[in-house]
Amino acid sequence: MTWHDGYIAVDWGTTNRRAWRVGPDGVISASFEDDLGLLAVPEGGFPAAAAAIRQRLGDDPMILAGMVGSDRGWREAPYFPCPVGAEALAAAIVWIEPGRTGIVPGVSQCGAAGTGADVMRGEEVQVFGAAAMGVTPPDGLVCHPGTHAKWIRLQAGRIARFRTMMTGELFNLLRTHSILAPQLRGPAAPDDSFSAGVAAAFAGGDVLSGLFGVRARYLLGESVGEPASFASGLLIGSDVRAALAEDAAAPAREVVLIGRPDLCALYAAALAMRGVATRRVDGAEAFLAGIRLIAEML
Amino acid sequence: MTWHDGYIAVDWGTTNRRAWRVGPDGVISASFEDDLGLLAVPEGGFPAAAAAIRQRLGDDPMILAGMVGSDRGWREAPYFPCPVGAEALAAAIVWIEPGRTGIVPGVSQCGAAGTGADVMRGEEVQVFGAAAMGVTPPDGLVCHPGTHAKWIRLQAGRIARFRTMMTGELFNLLRTHSILAPQLRGPAAPDDSFSAGVAAAFAGGDVLSGLFGVRARYLLGESVGEPASFASGLLIGSDVRAALAEDAAAPAREVVLIGRPDLCALYAAALAMRGVATRRVDGAEAFLAGIRLIAEML
Repeated sequence: MTWHDGYIAVDWGTTNRRAWRVGPDGVISASFEDDLGLLAVPEGGFPAAAAAIRQRLGDDPMILAGMVGSDRGWREAPYFPCPVGAEALAAAIVWIEPGRTGIVPGVSQCGAAGTGADVMRGEEVQVFGAAAMGVTPPDGLVCHPGTHAKWIRLQAGRIARFRTMMTGELFNLLRTHSILAPQLRGPAAPDDSFSAGVAAAFAGGDVLSGLFGVRARYLLGESVGEPASFASGLLIGSDVRAALAEDAAAPAREVVLIGRPDLCALYAAALAMRGVATRRVDGAEAFLAGIRLIAEML
Repeated sequence: MTWHDGYIAVDWGTTNRRAWRVGPDGVISASFEDDLGLLAVPEGGFPAAAAAIRQRLGDDPMILAGMVGSDRGWREAPYFPCPVGAEALAAAIVWIEPGRTGIVPGVSQCGAAGTGADVMRGEEVQVFGAAAMGVTPPDGLVCHPGTHAKWIRLQAGRIARFRTMMTGELFNLLRTHSILAPQLRGPAAPDDSFSAGVAAAFAGGDVLSGLFGVRARYLLGESVGEPASFASGLLIGSDVRAALAEDAAAPAREVVLIGRPDLCALYAAALAMRGVATRRVDGAEAFLAGIRLIAEML
């Protein structure tokens, strides 16, 4: 059995997992998605869980990526420090069973004096996949919106540096636990209120006071439009502003967005307000292209 | 009975209240503090609660301030729009019983196109009090740290404008509900880690990525010093940077801090890193001086 005969690709996260059976021609012949993330696997339960995946998808070699390689996962696949290319990552796969079951490591960044220290697990496979698909140029800038949004700068096809923003988590904390929660119940959409929030952030408005303005306007009976959209715009605007400021000398003209379509739409709207074009890649498609690239290197 | 014969001053907030009996010479002859804030008063229960205060402190005129004048309090005392001086506020007191029981209104700011909209209740009394005490110059900048930190700019002794930052609430959300919670359990102190956080914020580091760095460094086994202090420094540094940027043309050289000593110490440390001197005023003392100033105008 070789990788060219097909394999199983697994994106195993903390709360969810997705698995695909990839045929020798690259065609997906079977797949499934469920909520058996790390947290749902009992201690010592990973071998049985992987065997169950093979029962459903076939007795093929398996490549896994994501939080399954963290210290809370199946086996720790230590972070590979950037800059890193797909080949280095493929060579650093941690084998549960050599040539048969391997975990792709995440990527780390060690900053000077603690600044810039960062980590990712799973997004790196998608980024290399988007590059392999030809969507991301070898020196492109990739944004992966989410709970912890990632901005990833490629150089010559390698991940040169990256930056994680707690944008999504902060928005969720605000809408769940903060004094603003009653005002932020609605969905965030790329509407006029969102644009107003982005514009405030681009104009230098800081998040800390901008957010309280949502409450103040409510108390003063002023029109607040869609508060959830405004707050989302303020946060995503701050996120985009900080990310683009890193390349102030040679501003990015295009950003590749990978991830949830609703979040990508918000980031695309904010980036458009800075004159930055966007291309979107489906996360699963990018992941599969990345695993395929890595499989071909084994 | 006139205000010159003495009165009762009440700072009535959402979860706590403090009351003082002020004699004709300004001397405090009795006081108490308890947790019978707004939330603990049953509907229609304010007259009885106020009568109980008089039973404890004497049958004197009473001036109240704080959230007791909000729409969830005893009676709504509509926000007075700034700029506003102590006399205008005194003239706008909402009387429950004329000349005997009155609530000082809060202050609002209506910004152009919704930006800058802001509100306060209670801090305005302290600010006018600090000015009456001679601690705050007539054109001074006052900072009131807390869950919702306020920066208040005086001009010719009036509140000209102000800005609320959700700094304290965000820090509490992060240490209670976020992925950083396990790292942020310790106390925040003005130590080296705090200074590092402030320095990162002053250097333009954004809160969204700086916070994730706390987690990344933990995962990478890098020294994180005191993570709670670092995160606090990052937030307070961003707060201070944004507040000082408002007066970039004529930077503040001194800030008067009113509030909790531990929070004032953190803000003083951050301001010192920008070469800004600080003076501290006890919150209760400032409140009493403010109520006295207002009482003398009645």
